[in-house]
Amino acid sequence: MRRVVIRGGLVVTATDEIEADVLVEGERVAALAERGSDAAQGWTADHVIDATGKYVIPGGVDAHTHMELPFGGTSASDTFETGTRAAAWGGTTTVVDFAVQSKGQALRDGLDAWYAKAAGHCAIDYAFHMILSDVTDASLKEMDLLVDEGITSFKLFMAYPGVFYSDDGQILRAMQRAAGNGGTIMMHAENGIAIDVLVEQALAAGRTDPRYHGEVRKVLLEAEATHRAVQLARVAGGPPLYVVHVSAEEAVRELAVARDAGLPVFGETCPQYLFLSTDNLAEPDFEGAKYVCSTPLRPREHQAALWRGLRTDDLQVVSTDHCPFCFSGQKELGRGDFSKIPNGIPGVENRMDLLHQAVVEGHISRRRWIDIACAAPARMFGLYGRKGTIAPGADADIVVYDPAAEQTLSAETHHMNVDYSAYEGKRITGQVVTVLSRGRTVIDERRYTGRAGHGVFLPRATCQYVN
Amino acid sequence: MRRVVIRGGLVVTATDEIEADVLVEGERVAALAERGSDAAQGWTADHVIDATGKYVIPGGVDAHTHMELPFGGTSASDTFETGTRAAAWGGTTTVVDFAVQSKGQALRDGLDAWYAKAAGHCAIDYAFHMILSDVTDASLKEMDLLVDEGITSFKLFMAYPGVFYSDDGQILRAMQRAAGNGGTIMMHAENGIAIDVLVEQALAAGRTDPRYHGEVRKVLLEAEATHRAVQLARVAGGPPLYVVHVSAEEAVRELAVARDAGLPVFGETCPQYLFLSTDNLAEPDFEGAKYVCSTPLRPREHQAALWRGLRTDDLQVVSTDHCPFCFSGQKELGRGDFSKIPNGIPGVENRMDLLHQAVVEGHISRRRWIDIACAAPARMFGLYGRKGTIAPGADADIVVYDPAAEQTLSAETHHMNVDYSAYEGKRITGQVVTVLSRGRTVIDERRYTGRAGHGVFLPRATCQYVN
Amino acid sequence: MRRVVIRGGLVVTATDEIEADVLVEGERVAALAERGSDAAQGWTADHVIDATGKYVIPGGVDAHTHMELPFGGTSASDTFETGTRAAAWGGTTTVVDFAVQSKGQALRDGLDAWYAKAAGHCAIDYAFHMILSDVTDASLKEMDLLVDEGITSFKLFMAYPGVFYSDDGQILRAMQRAAGNGGTIMMHAENGIAIDVLVEQALAAGRTDPRYHGEVRKVLLEAEATHRAVQLARVAGGPPLYVVHVSAEEAVRELAVARDAGLPVFGETCPQYLFLSTDNLAEPDFEGAKYVCSTPLRPREHQAALWRGLRTDDLQVVSTDHCPFCFSGQKELGRGDFSKIPNGIPGVENRMDLLHQAVVEGHISRRRWIDIACAAPARMFGLYGRKGTIAPGADADIVVYDPAAEQTLSAETHHMNVDYSAYEGKRITGQVVTVLSRGRTVIDERRYTGRAGHGVFLPRATCQYVN
Amino acid sequence: MRRVVIRGGLVVTATDEIEADVLVEGERVAALAERGSDAAQGWTADHVIDATGKYVIPGGVDAHTHMELPFGGTSASDTFETGTRAAAWGGTTTVVDFAVQSKGQALRDGLDAWYAKAAGHCAIDYAFHMILSDVTDASLKEMDLLVDEGITSFKLFMAYPGVFYSDDGQILRAMQRAAGNGGTIMMHAENGIAIDVLVEQALAAGRTDPRYHGEVRKVLLEAEATHRAVQLARVAGGPPLYVVHVSAEEAVRELAVARDAGLPVFGETCPQYLFLSTDNLAEPDFEGAKYVCSTPLRPREHQAALWRGLRTDDLQVVSTDHCPFCFSGQKELGRGDFSKIPNGIPGVENRMDLLHQAVVEGHISRRRWIDIACAAPARMFGLYGRKGTIAPGADADIVVYDPAAEQTLSAETHHMNVDYSAYEGKRITGQVVTVLSRGRTVIDERRYTGRAGHGVFLPRATCQYVN
Repeated sequence: MRRVVIRGGLVVTATDEIEADVLVEGERVAALAERGSDAAQGWTADHVIDATGKYVIPGGVDAHTHMELPFGGTSASDTFETGTRAAAWGGTTTVVDFAVQSKGQALRDGLDAWYAKAAGHCAIDYAFHMILSDVTDASLKEMDLLVDEGITSFKLFMAYPGVFYSDDGQILRAMQRAAGNGGTIMMHAENGIAIDVLVEQALAAGRTDPRYHGEVRKVLLEAEATHRAVQLARVAGGPPLYVVHVSAEEAVRELAVARDAGLPVFGETCPQYLFLSTDNLAEPDFEGAKYVCSTPLRPREHQAALWRGLRTDDLQVVSTDHCPFCFSGQKELGRGDFSKIPNGIPGVENRMDLLHQAVVEGHISRRRWIDIACAAPARMFGLYGRKGTIAPGADADIVVYDPAAEQTLSAETHHMNVDYSAYEGKRITGQVVTVLSRGRTVIDERRYTGRAGHGVFLPRATCQYVN
Repeated sequence: MRRVVIRGGLVVTATDEIEADVLVEGERVAALAERGSDAAQGWTADHVIDATGKYVIPGGVDAHTHMELPFGGTSASDTFETGTRAAAWGGTTTVVDFAVQSKGQALRDGLDAWYAKAAGHCAIDYAFHMILSDVTDASLKEMDLLVDEGITSFKLFMAYPGVFYSDDGQILRAMQRAAGNGGTIMMHAENGIAIDVLVEQALAAGRTDPRYHGEVRKVLLEAEATHRAVQLARVAGGPPLYVVHVSAEEAVRELAVARDAGLPVFGETCPQYLFLSTDNLAEPDFEGAKYVCSTPLRPREHQAALWRGLRTDDLQVVSTDHCPFCFSGQKELGRGDFSKIPNGIPGVENRMDLLHQAVVEGHISRRRWIDIACAAPARMFGLYGRKGTIAPGADADIVVYDPAAEQTLSAETHHMNVDYSAYEGKRITGQVVTVLSRGRTVIDERRYTGRAGHGVFLPRATCQYVN
Repeated sequence: MRRVVIRGGLVVTATDEIEADVLVEGERVAALAERGSDAAQGWTADHVIDATGKYVIPGGVDAHTHMELPFGGTSASDTFETGTRAAAWGGTTTVVDFAVQSKGQALRDGLDAWYAKAAGHCAIDYAFHMILSDVTDASLKEMDLLVDEGITSFKLFMAYPGVFYSDDGQILRAMQRAAGNGGTIMMHAENGIAIDVLVEQALAAGRTDPRYHGEVRKVLLEAEATHRAVQLARVAGGPPLYVVHVSAEEAVRELAVARDAGLPVFGETCPQYLFLSTDNLAEPDFEGAKYVCSTPLRPREHQAALWRGLRTDDLQVVSTDHCPFCFSGQKELGRGDFSKIPNGIPGVENRMDLLHQAVVEGHISRRRWIDIACAAPARMFGLYGRKGTIAPGADADIVVYDPAAEQTLSAETHHMNVDYSAYEGKRITGQVVTVLSRGRTVIDERRYTGRAGHGVFLPRATCQYVN
Repeated sequence: MRRVVIRGGLVVTATDEIEADVLVEGERVAALAERGSDAAQGWTADHVIDATGKYVIPGGVDAHTHMELPFGGTSASDTFETGTRAAAWGGTTTVVDFAVQSKGQALRDGLDAWYAKAAGHCAIDYAFHMILSDVTDASLKEMDLLVDEGITSFKLFMAYPGVFYSDDGQILRAMQRAAGNGGTIMMHAENGIAIDVLVEQALAAGRTDPRYHGEVRKVLLEAEATHRAVQLARVAGGPPLYVVHVSAEEAVRELAVARDAGLPVFGETCPQYLFLSTDNLAEPDFEGAKYVCSTPLRPREHQAALWRGLRTDDLQVVSTDHCPFCFSGQKELGRGDFSKIPNGIPGVENRMDLLHQAVVEGHISRRRWIDIACAAPARMFGLYGRKGTIAPGADADIVVYDPAAEQTLSAETHHMNVDYSAYEGKRITGQVVTVLSRGRTVIDERRYTGRAGHGVFLPRATCQYVN
């Protein structure tokens, strides 16, 4: 077996910061040894990576991406090939994407379609959640099969009536099923029925600019839906509930209350809510459309609550909700009608860097960075042990990260297949140097050395927070 | 350097469960390697411990003991020699004991007295907190020196007027100092001024039995003091505040509120609050005296709130508050007047086992067991990295634990120097087999092979939860 | 004008207890004078009522009745004639009943139908709320007209999908309209979509007994809907929100939170939730059907929270939700399927007595009795000044109440047109002696002296709590 | 008996707004009659007051004044003669002042001294609370006697160590006694022990300006003490607890939590907290000293929370805490040391007008104005029925108030014996026209027609909110 040794770095995991060398045998981490110990010094290797002055961190786990997602008459602009390659550039070595059940379709059909999209194209490992758009007796039964197959999480929407929306009865039934089969319910928590009334009223009043996207999708309607999801989960017997893309202080508060009560309720936020705001949505000349996503960006004051939630562990995970649409030709579909702007923001390449920037700026500690970006998403979705940490037996998904490098985010230099960056011009301290995916070097001193098809599908265990 | 290899066990830390072998070089963990890997198989050793079927866990860290404490005209019955030996038997390899400043005395004097009591007598490593009984300009200045010396936590009492009690002004000043020098404030949070009124009234009314100890020290007066301590800490500029021996649901609630707000507030509970109750205090024939400690045991209903607090991380640490007094001759000082019963319960030997029993009974997960008993106390008090985990570079404080062994707790078989067990007759699944302290075997297949004086004093860093 | 003087009683209003004589001129209270004053002694009268040893209280205002309501294929068994006569017997001189918009029908049609049912039949004065079953552009516009006509409150249902149910978008729109026209939104707050899933599951599992009615309509689903209604009202711009028949502690909690925030949110409970429980629903031989209403009866523990809510003013009103169905022939429709039991409990005659019993038992004060039964419902629904108090200029709706009389509630003696009493055999201290409605004696020393058609329709002002 | 009729006004009480005429016979209200009724028209009178276009309201009840209070080496500048006369000018017809127990003195001694100060000097009726400065077995026993004598409320201080301060044990004992004898505990809720540390530190750092008075007396230390007082009252068995001069949002929050739980906890705020702020304390040239009182003025943001608290009934009473010290010679004692500035602000004359201004500005309704200024303080302190309302049998303490008059507050025109106005130059809409005290005209069309000695001592019942 090929042996790689990474020497001289500071190994940072969610819980430890160790001056240790790392030995990789084949696809896995074989051992960690104290730097300078007889054990470490005795290692021989086919390849030695010098990480002196660098961090040696687990590859990022992005638990929320939408490659090639059909939405609003167009499709997300990153394929699994371009999207996972960009992820690798950004230090992420696992993505969990969403297979979609269409109305009237079996889960199986949707899942098989996503298997087909991804297979043979991914630069890094990948797994799937399943979007339930049509909760029926048949699809409930299929949930059990999917859990067995390693698709252990199911996303429901309280928003998007007529598209992905499930009513409270459907949600309750899916939650009951998950309570029985061990699955996790992921929730897009916005009261879409009420929002659609406000959308219609705004358009009727001529308020068509992208900034109205932010105004109609009200904070209270996110918090309300969050509260409702928690209560329905309690009625259903308490399956793990993971609220996606939490954006508002009041929604964090609902999560905190639930967690204080000991309920298995979890929350995710995304870099866009931490670094962007309604100021961006209000950019002139339809530029605001670049920042249209749902839940929407919020007034700047909410950012402090999100950072605090990440520190208090009322939010556990930062994912990207990566769902890129080009400004030209895609976002432009909504000129004159904000409700027609495809919802989504690119970011799979930027997450690890933006969160390191948060370390630099003092929002979170170094270990918490690795926790929310690697360990917690892995644990949340049944991948921990194999992904999310650097430990003997784990997959050798390892990033050598230079904490002192300076870079500027830009569409000109990024690798995502989208014509703009949501963070154009933002200065970042810290950069990925080298990335191993299952022992293979896919980024080598900032050169891409991976290949489409290296990445494999990961069947997942159920939520490891509740076992 | 002597090399020891522990093979075949399941390494359990606060965050990981790994099938790995552990290599010890001298006093430290040199490496962990995946079981069966070339790396692991290549290790040679002076001594091999077979941990097949066992857990390999970090040595316990008991952050709250009172060896040889003078109290109520007598002294705690365990010396550092007997107490630390009993700790080792129970799988604990670090204790943090409390040096005591007497009224009118310098901190230095108290600390030196405790150095002298412990030096050369301990079977395992030890550190000190400092009890402040007399907050003055002089003792405030000494706090800075102690922090530099590795005494980084300072205990104050809102109870025991006339003995350890500090008023809110003294507390505020000590907290301000800690906010400046990085120290942690530990708080005995009970409104002792109000309690003393109730004690006097109870005695005057002829209510002298031990059970009245529990009745007068009211839940609301613990919760009130907890709330007050949090507010004073906020006014003082927010030093870490660690509330000791939390016993009541309402007090946990105060901590939860503070933590939701992102304040650096922490809570400890003890096995006696998790496993015993006012039922014990009400045992006839003065047997209740065995269970007299402060905060007191609470009605059984509070236990669920404490377990929930441990799961939600509103409580982070389980320490023992080990403070043994023999029933015969010591507890008996309070016959006819519960207020004269020396306060304290033995437990340093039982903690790891009782908490494993909680794993067996489903209250907490295996990893959470190690967290609250090893990792969190180490991190709380600046020992993490060296203590509290099994990782390259850490002290080789390692316990081989048999999760299937059956035992019965009893004064007849325990090693603490006290004539009763608070858990007499309790059946436990799980038992310590072998214990290493800094690489040396101190318990070997349930034989004591340690020696008084092996343990060294540990200067501590400041709280690692806030850095 | 005819002059009546009531002498010698204790006038009790929501705020005062006065030893005063009351002078009625024609239909109105002309004056109150201190007993024994020159002013009082100078009064001459056509009729003198001796109230010595009695209370002189405002006639009750029952803000929630359903006379002749079509429901579940049958109709409530009290007509306006029988129901208002029974109300008078029980000391209630005003009822606010619910006109019903059917799906597809105009509000006007429903309202006119209810005008027709009531006109010429009522023993006491009456007013109407309007049930919105079909929120459309047209019905929204009609709301404004109804407010002008004195129908100033609109009831929406979050329960009963397919019948009265409105979705969150319809609710939001109706609330927005009310925020503009001054109307009050009344809400049946239960998540009916989720409940219907549980109903279907219960029936499928053979759980058909009346007690399952209580089990499927879960406390959490009432509290959830209450929370949601509050949030939707906030989004809508804050019309007064009045939650009907609050039955659960958790729902009271939601109201308390809203009210602490200063929102115009109000709550009603009913005697059945204060005096009955799931124990009644579980009575054998289908007797539980007598107690089927929605929200359902709750476990006994909730009663204390409701009483507390009434004392803390988190609940303001006690109405009956009087909706009688005979056991024989009506309730029996649900044998073998609890979901087919007509929902409703008789009570319009019992409310004042049951609440006086609560005074006797110490749950509430004498003044609070009058407040929740007379003044608050009048003020809530725009009748105060004319109804709900005894003051110069008010309608002479006056009850002489004997606080020492003993009675036993029973279907054999009650005057409601229904074949059972929900309180059969209950002993009550206190009884109505004499009742004046707009100056006319309708109950005279426990003889009925009123007539159908005496009662007039009362156009109402908007909520007087928010002006 | 002399008969006075007040015709043509709008009678406004805490609950009613009635177009009624009022008949006074001797010292009491004999009758109210609907304007234009035969009853009203039949009245003959010795004196008729034309109140057309005016409000007819109950005389104000100021439950918190300190006439002639010795404080900080000087005395409040209003005597009972000047202070009660000014009160009458401002539409207040009852004051409840504080008799003071000095350390080592009996309650009796303090009370007798205050009887002596007031007797024969007051323009309006008066009553006393008792300040407990020395809780001992003897003074606890005296509490019972005072309750019998009509002194039914006892004020304790958590602030002012060494002067009025009681420790938590003393507070607990006084509360226990009150729980037994029906007395109400009034609490100055600030953690004075902690505040004194901050005062000393501020002065040591050269921060001597009046604005530092506001900075050291921190919001958190008011809220903490409020919380503590509530918990001690619960432990003591739940006597009514009335927190005086609540100034901070966080303190209101503590009251709201207590009240939601149904505890007999009440709160008072004062005009200075509603209309003034730390901006005033920061006025240059030592002008800030005019606004030094404790609790201190707060940042402007707290005002909204206080108004909301008054609307939600989490605060029930607005009193003045009238305690005037002249700027010249008295306030100046604290030049160079803010801690030496006598604490207190004049206001007894301004309260009714300032609160009417709040009606004009939309903070509260007209009825709520009368509630918080007249009815609630009367009810709180056992005077309701006789004071606080206009009803048959009540004392004829009546104010004819012109809601349209314009005035400007100023020391040049006020009648308080103090050389400045805290509201100098403030424009007010509304003014007192005529005032009756027990039937006698003391202000007649803005001429003073009263006399020192008209006012009588009022023995009080216990708190009427809990009976």
